[in-house]
Amino acid sequence: MSRFSIGVDLGGTNLRIAAVDVDGNLIEKITLGTQVSKGREFVMGEMCDAIAALKTRYSGKAELCGVGLGIPGIIDKRTGMLRESPNLPGWHDTPVGQQLSGLLNTEVILENDANAAAFGENWLGAGRGYDEMCMITLGTGVGGGLVLRQGIWLGMNGMAGEVGHVTIEPNGHPCGCGNVGCVEQYASATAIMRMAREEIEAGDAPALAKLAAGPNVEFNAREVFNLAIQGDKAAQRVYDRVGRALGMLIGGLINVLNLRMYVIGGGVSNGWSAFAPKMFEELRKRSMVYAATAPPEEYIPIGASAKVSPLQPPPYRTIVTRALLGSDAGLYGAARLPQVKNCKF
Amino acid sequence: MSRFSIGVDLGGTNLRIAAVDVDGNLIEKITLGTQVSKGREFVMGEMCDAIAALKTRYSGKAELCGVGLGIPGIIDKRTGMLRESPNLPGWHDTPVGQQLSGLLNTEVILENDANAAAFGENWLGAGRGYDEMCMITLGTGVGGGLVLRQGIWLGMNGMAGEVGHVTIEPNGHPCGCGNVGCVEQYASATAIMRMAREEIEAGDAPALAKLAAGPNVEFNAREVFNLAIQGDKAAQRVYDRVGRALGMLIGGLINVLNLRMYVIGGGVSNGWSAFAPKMFEELRKRSMVYAATAPPEEYIPIGASAKVSPLQPPPYRTIVTRALLGSDAGLYGAARLPQVKNCKF
Repeated sequence: MSRFSIGVDLGGTNLRIAAVDVDGNLIEKITLGTQVSKGREFVMGEMCDAIAALKTRYSGKAELCGVGLGIPGIIDKRTGMLRESPNLPGWHDTPVGQQLSGLLNTEVILENDANAAAFGENWLGAGRGYDEMCMITLGTGVGGGLVLRQGIWLGMNGMAGEVGHVTIEPNGHPCGCGNVGCVEQYASATAIMRMAREEIEAGDAPALAKLAAGPNVEFNAREVFNLAIQGDKAAQRVYDRVGRALGMLIGGLINVLNLRMYVIGGGVSNGWSAFAPKMFEELRKRSMVYAATAPPEEYIPIGASAKVSPLQPPPYRTIVTRALLGSDAGLYGAARLPQVKNCKF
Repeated sequence: MSRFSIGVDLGGTNLRIAAVDVDGNLIEKITLGTQVSKGREFVMGEMCDAIAALKTRYSGKAELCGVGLGIPGIIDKRTGMLRESPNLPGWHDTPVGQQLSGLLNTEVILENDANAAAFGENWLGAGRGYDEMCMITLGTGVGGGLVLRQGIWLGMNGMAGEVGHVTIEPNGHPCGCGNVGCVEQYASATAIMRMAREEIEAGDAPALAKLAAGPNVEFNAREVFNLAIQGDKAAQRVYDRVGRALGMLIGGLINVLNLRMYVIGGGVSNGWSAFAPKMFEELRKRSMVYAATAPPEEYIPIGASAKVSPLQPPPYRTIVTRALLGSDAGLYGAARLPQVKNCKF
C-alpha cells in the first residue's frame, strides 16, 4: 500500500467510512448508523471523527489521495454543495465539501450516491475492465449512474443517470416526481409492495394475502420474492412486472447508447432469479441492438458470478448482469474519486 | 480556403456531393439522383466521378483533408464496410470505404447518415458551440445521433443513436424492428399517415377523409400538417400524438443524459408548430430534470431561428429546438469527419 484514499457512503440509515488503497484493497471499514434525528452537525461530527481516525492511522504508512463522499441527493459539483437530499432532511444547501475539507485539511470530492455506486462497480465489480457502463440501482427508489470513457457522466449539471424516472407506462402509476409510469413505480422495493397489494386486492393472491396478514413474517419485497421462487403465481406476476419494466428501460438505453455493459444493483437485485427471465425476454423484443448482440448464455443464475470476461469482443456482446459489490459499491466508488483525480497511475 | 474536404450524402433517392472548407463554407455542391435500380457499380461510379471532379477542381488551390460519406445503414467503422442498408438493396456487406479510397487514392470515412446529420448540426447548425447534443431525425423513419465530447458517440459497434426504436407505448403499434410501440410508429411521416387513416376510420375526421379521397392534393404528412394549423381537430390530434411521442422520448433522454441540447430535424420537423406545444407539455411532465432547467421561452415559432446562445449557462438550460441545416446537415457532417480526423485546427 503506497497510496490510499478514504471513501464515505452517507446514507439515510447507514454511515460507512473506509480506507481503500489504489489497488482496491479494503484496509479498514467503519460502520455507523446515520443518526439523522440528531441533526446535521452531529452527523458531520461523527463522519469527520471517523475520517480523521483513518487518516491518522494510515497517513504515516502511505500517501492519502483525498476523501470521496457519496451522498444521496442533488450535488453542485463545482462548489461541493449539497443542494437537496430527500433522505437527509435539513441538509439542503449545505456546503458539505467545503466544511469537511476545512475540518480535515484534505480535499473532499462529493458525488451522488448512485453515481458513486456505478463508479465502484466499474472499478472493482461487474463492470471491471469496461470503459463504458450503465448501472441501475434498485432500492427504495430506482437510481442510476453512467460511466462513459472511464469517468462518471455528470451531464450538464450533475443530473444525469436518472434512469428511475424514465417513463415506461405512458398512463401508469403516479410517481413522486410529478410524472406517471416511471420505472421507479415498477422496479423499486416500494413498487413491489404496491404491486403485491394490488394483487391481493384483485383477489387472486391467497399466499400474498396470507403473508400480508401474518404476524410472524414481515411483508416486504424479499418475502414476495420467496413466494415467487416457490412457484406462487401472483408473486411471480409482481416480479414479471419488475422484469418487464427493466427490460423496457434497458432496451431503450441499449438502443440509444449501445454500451457493452449494464449492471443491476441495489437490494431488489437480490430478486434476480425472479425478474431476470422476463427482463431478458423483453430486452430481445424491445431492442434490436440487444437482439443482435446478446450473449449466448445471458441468464446468470442467482449466486453465480457474472463471468463476463469470456464474452468480450470480438464478437460484440451486450452484457446485462448483476452487481457484484452489494452495498459496498458506493463506498468503493467514493474512495476511487480522489484516487483518479489526484494520484497518477 | 486553405483546407477543404469532400462530403457525400448517399441516400436512397438523392446523391449529393459537396466540397466544404474547414470554416464550413460550401464551395460547390453536386446533386444527383441515386439510380439504385441501375445497381451498385453504377452508383459507385457516379459518386466516384463527382468526387474526383471536385478533387481535381480544388486540390490545386487548397489541401484536401479527405472524403466523408454518410450512408443509411449499419456500418462497421473499423473496416469501412457497409453491413446492411434497407434503402440500398444489394449493397449489403460492401467494402464501400475501401473501394472508394482505392479508386480515389484518398482516405474515405464512412458514417451512418443520422450520425452525420447530428455532426453537421453540431458543427454549423442548431447545436453549434455545444460539446454535447442529441439529434432526432424525423423522416420516413426516425433516426438519431449523439455527439458527446465533440465527437459522434458510436457505442460498442456503431449502433448507438437508435432513438426511433425506443419503446414509448408498451402495447403500441407493431414496428418493423420486431418491437411494438416504438417512437418511429408515432413520430415519422409514415406514422403520421397511419394515424391520419386511423382518424378517418374512427369516423370523426371529415377534412382528413376529404383530403384522402381528393384527386388534386397528395395525401401526405405536410397536408395533414396544413389541416392541423388551419384548426382541424382530427389533424391536430395526429400531431399531438407526434408531440407526445417526442416528449416522452426526449424526456427520457434528458433524464438519462442531462445534455444541454436536443435538435429535431428531418422533413417532419417542418410540422414543428403543430407538434411542439404538446411536446413541451409532455417534456415538463416526463422529466423533472427538464422542468428544472427549461428555458423561459421554450417554444420557438416556425420560421424563427433557434436563438439559443443567450440561454447558455449560467444558469443551466436544457434546449430542445429545431434543426437549422435542413437536408444539408448530413452533407456538412460527412464533410466534417475527415477535417476533424486529418486537419489540425
